[in-house]
Amino acid sequence: MSHTVTAALVVIGDEILSGRTKDVNIGAVADFCTDLGIALSEVRVVSDVEGEIVDAINAVRARYTYVFTTGGIGPTHDDITADAVAKAFGVPLTINPEARAMLEARWRQTGTEVNAARLRMARIPEGATLIANSVSAAPGFRIGNVHVMAGVPVIMRAMLEAVAPTLEGGRKVKSITIRCRVGEGSIGTALGAIQAEFPDVKMGSYPQMGQTHVMTELVLRCADEDRLAVAAERVKSMVGEAHRQAGLSDTVEAY
Amino acid sequence: MSHTVTAALVVIGDEILSGRTKDVNIGAVADFCTDLGIALSEVRVVSDVEGEIVDAINAVRARYTYVFTTGGIGPTHDDITADAVAKAFGVPLTINPEARAMLEARWRQTGTEVNAARLRMARIPEGATLIANSVSAAPGFRIGNVHVMAGVPVIMRAMLEAVAPTLEGGRKVKSITIRCRVGEGSIGTALGAIQAEFPDVKMGSYPQMGQTHVMTELVLRCADEDRLAVAAERVKSMVGEAHRQAGLSDTVEAY
Repeated sequence: MSHTVTAALVVIGDEILSGRTKDVNIGAVADFCTDLGIALSEVRVVSDVEGEIVDAINAVRARYTYVFTTGGIGPTHDDITADAVAKAFGVPLTINPEARAMLEARWRQTGTEVNAARLRMARIPEGATLIANSVSAAPGFRIGNVHVMAGVPVIMRAMLEAVAPTLEGGRKVKSITIRCRVGEGSIGTALGAIQAEFPDVKMGSYPQMGQTHVMTELVLRCADEDRLAVAAERVKSMVGEAHRQAGLSDTVEAY
Repeated sequence: MSHTVTAALVVIGDEILSGRTKDVNIGAVADFCTDLGIALSEVRVVSDVEGEIVDAINAVRARYTYVFTTGGIGPTHDDITADAVAKAFGVPLTINPEARAMLEARWRQTGTEVNAARLRMARIPEGATLIANSVSAAPGFRIGNVHVMAGVPVIMRAMLEAVAPTLEGGRKVKSITIRCRVGEGSIGTALGAIQAEFPDVKMGSYPQMGQTHVMTELVLRCADEDRLAVAAERVKSMVGEAHRQAGLSDTVEAY
């Protein structure tokens, strides 16, 4: 096994748990990690309660290479992520001069008044470094292995781009998708046998619903390209046989 | 405080963590809980690794009134949710005659062969009761306070409907949304003061991005309708004042 770089995501916000806002950041962070060869291993969604945020961050930061958080860094009283992260790390939360300067520069441009609520966004745990926000100036921050980002999706994605060059990626995991024209019940036993033979190749089975034809996509993932190719050939020939048994042509599409 | 009914959701599946599938079940379960007056308090997304599923289920089932899980109950080797739940509860996982009969009735209709992979879907932890699946027959199950459901969204929603009558709902939480035509930085301090005065009324602030006009929605939630109305009047008059200060009409839309 090569060195595996792992990550966890903590999504912070009552609006996700109430259903008022439908999260799209989990999928974006998942795609981002996959692209960088980082194994996103766990996600937690927690409410705007300081103790819950502290506990979630402390649980995952001890366990994974990187932690990302989204949400709770705006100017209102329910934005308490910076407070919780400072508490999790046992450091003071103070107005960061660099963050304040970034915000004031933006506010001067837009003629926005400096007030206590807005200055909340310059409060950064001591020892953290800032994460640039090209969208709305208010920065995120990194402390230890924890990256604190905005919840607004466009800002969150901009912050991910800012963070990317600082992350150590794992080996890029390669994948092959095999399209199977029979249901997964027809191939489950045989696929299980091949999976047992190739424990280092992750094999997922995804039935496609709501289509006119039965379709199951089998996705094989492995860091070792040669090994992946061997496993994929085995699965393709198994699926070809399943097609024949179902009276279909034995062609198997893969990509 | 009235009795609060709480819930956690455990989303099971590598496909969510890799980004291959974008989850929509979190939002659906969140809406479902809110409608029933149940406070969805935590969500965890975990990978298809038995120990991870066991640990997540045991952590949340001790803590919340109800637990829902989605994913991992299909016919392939990577569907290990039933195994993990049986292990979490320390009970055997056996072929359930009622589940088998449901599946076989469907398979007779569709001319589907009974095989080992398909029979995996009849494996139910001992002591569990079944959750009907009107879409594709393969049932979910409930054991203790844990409700195990499919990951395919249309099936998951059908299972929620089947489960709903068995759940004890909390008091229905009422909400009032107040539309504010200034940014949240302009009202954050005043809103924080009103929140401090009304700790029993949950006040959330949601900036609307990507619109031509600045807009902040303030959502107030409380089980007590009278108390909610008093708090909402306070917030509306504060927002009216913020509008006046910004040179806007003091009209405040609320619903």
